[in-house]
Amino acid sequence: MEKDLVIGIDVGGQTSKCGVVDARGTVLAQTVIRSDDTDQVEPFIASLADALNKIIADAGAEGRIRGIGVGVPNGNYYTGEVENAVNLKWGNHGTIAFADMLHKAMNGIPVKLTNDANAAAMGEMTYGAARGMKNFIMITLGTGVGSGIVIGGEVVYGHDGFAGELGHTCAVRHNGRPCNCGKTGCLETYASATGVARTAREWLDITDEPSLLRSLDNITSKDVFEAAKEGDKLALKIFEFTGRILGEKFADFIEFSAPEAIVLFGGLARAKAFLTEPIQKAMDANVLPLWRGKVKLVYSQLKESDAAILGASALAWEV
Amino acid sequence: MEKDLVIGIDVGGQTSKCGVVDARGTVLAQTVIRSDDTDQVEPFIASLADALNKIIADAGAEGRIRGIGVGVPNGNYYTGEVENAVNLKWGNHGTIAFADMLHKAMNGIPVKLTNDANAAAMGEMTYGAARGMKNFIMITLGTGVGSGIVIGGEVVYGHDGFAGELGHTCAVRHNGRPCNCGKTGCLETYASATGVARTAREWLDITDEPSLLRSLDNITSKDVFEAAKEGDKLALKIFEFTGRILGEKFADFIEFSAPEAIVLFGGLARAKAFLTEPIQKAMDANVLPLWRGKVKLVYSQLKESDAAILGASALAWEV
Repeated sequence: MEKDLVIGIDVGGQTSKCGVVDARGTVLAQTVIRSDDTDQVEPFIASLADALNKIIADAGAEGRIRGIGVGVPNGNYYTGEVENAVNLKWGNHGTIAFADMLHKAMNGIPVKLTNDANAAAMGEMTYGAARGMKNFIMITLGTGVGSGIVIGGEVVYGHDGFAGELGHTCAVRHNGRPCNCGKTGCLETYASATGVARTAREWLDITDEPSLLRSLDNITSKDVFEAAKEGDKLALKIFEFTGRILGEKFADFIEFSAPEAIVLFGGLARAKAFLTEPIQKAMDANVLPLWRGKVKLVYSQLKESDAAILGASALAWEV
Repeated sequence: MEKDLVIGIDVGGQTSKCGVVDARGTVLAQTVIRSDDTDQVEPFIASLADALNKIIADAGAEGRIRGIGVGVPNGNYYTGEVENAVNLKWGNHGTIAFADMLHKAMNGIPVKLTNDANAAAMGEMTYGAARGMKNFIMITLGTGVGSGIVIGGEVVYGHDGFAGELGHTCAVRHNGRPCNCGKTGCLETYASATGVARTAREWLDITDEPSLLRSLDNITSKDVFEAAKEGDKLALKIFEFTGRILGEKFADFIEFSAPEAIVLFGGLARAKAFLTEPIQKAMDANVLPLWRGKVKLVYSQLKESDAAILGASALAWEV
């Protein structure tokens, strides 16, 4: 039978999304499983294989799967391993031979993996806002801050396969917030969904400023977003601060690879209306004059769940 | 006659070095001219052409020059232009069609240019410490801080040809030193030869610490280097500080492109004995655990003047 379909899997901190995809980029069947109900990788791989077999059956795709592409935090394109993935409950035990394990669990279907942000960049380049671009930087604003860097039309993997960890570049040098990675002041401790929630809790604590957020118990970035939409001044200031931090670091990134655009994606990117202006302002204030006003700031044009599956699936055509 | 030779030109803030180079990388004839005795580009191009014609005659190379490669601050590989080069006396007037002008002045010999640090990276990749490496970052520590980024064996030029301005990424976010580029806190205001001299003058001014440097009028980084060799405590602290700033930023760069090595080159790199330890320490303290102790810090193995000429000359084989 012709192998005319691929599978894309996006492994996230809380959930993993899987889909069967055809050559045109149509998602024929998809499902979601939990990533955080075990701290061992074996049971996770087992439930992933169950889920894949189910969607293969749903799509009538038995015998037609050419390959499986996986986007996973700290996934190594060269080795197929996941190394010290601090945001995955089962990922923080050194090196996991993820691609090999899934390959075996799926009876020999080839598996390629990369980190989730690189996969998102591939999706955006193939189907989304970066179509036709040869040089761009994808920034995913989710639980953490991920990045996929494209130079000359190719995703940058670097010497060891782990390039593009821009969420862990330093945003605040002194007294920065502790990060899951063990460092302090990383960009993702400020500019991720959790970072925005941390800013909210911190500022509510140290100021008396009235805010809709004061009535809430366990503040999330979504709460801050909703409050900002209501015109809440503190919430608006939180996005201004978040945007400034992002724009300051984007300036550094532009000075590295001179991209045509920075593409934003992920849950927090929904706060576009509140983030764009402070990002652009800080980018222009901090970048060399030659790039001022020249690098586009664009938002993903793909449906969030589809983008991750499509991006990961793009890897599978290469097997 | 066979076009079997090329010319390499390294344009620096004070002087420009030119050489006739053969296919084996032997510099057959070379000379140096001043870059800073005019604030107009036309007379500079004229004296450059005179100098080139002289070394062509010296090398018996009339009719044998295949192309000219130029390394010049803010040189654009794609367009052959020099744009807003703040460190060049005649370069700060918008866009200069440098390659075209030199092409005409040299009676139609093809000219390719890139910035000086990219040229140095090509030299190091072809003949020096980065031979065989596909992923490395070249950092030139001279009057300013330049960088040439190599990914997958190719110099990164980016969307517009200007990628790799790591000397202008932000080292000190608040109250940083003013930079020639108009921004503040740029890496090169701390970690260049002039940055080291600034640190010395600043610290002599704000402390009472005894130092050999106190007796000097117009302190240069060379003075600080000589004092450090004498065991001068303040001078040693200055290099420790400089190394820390470099290492902190190198950590960010590693998180971007995951290089195999960072290659240091330029006048200030002679202070290797005082810089290596603080750089390495700060790199390891600030980079993600997965790269700790894994990215090599190496120093150029080429003679400084030759490296620049050879690097630039490598471009000329591509014409």
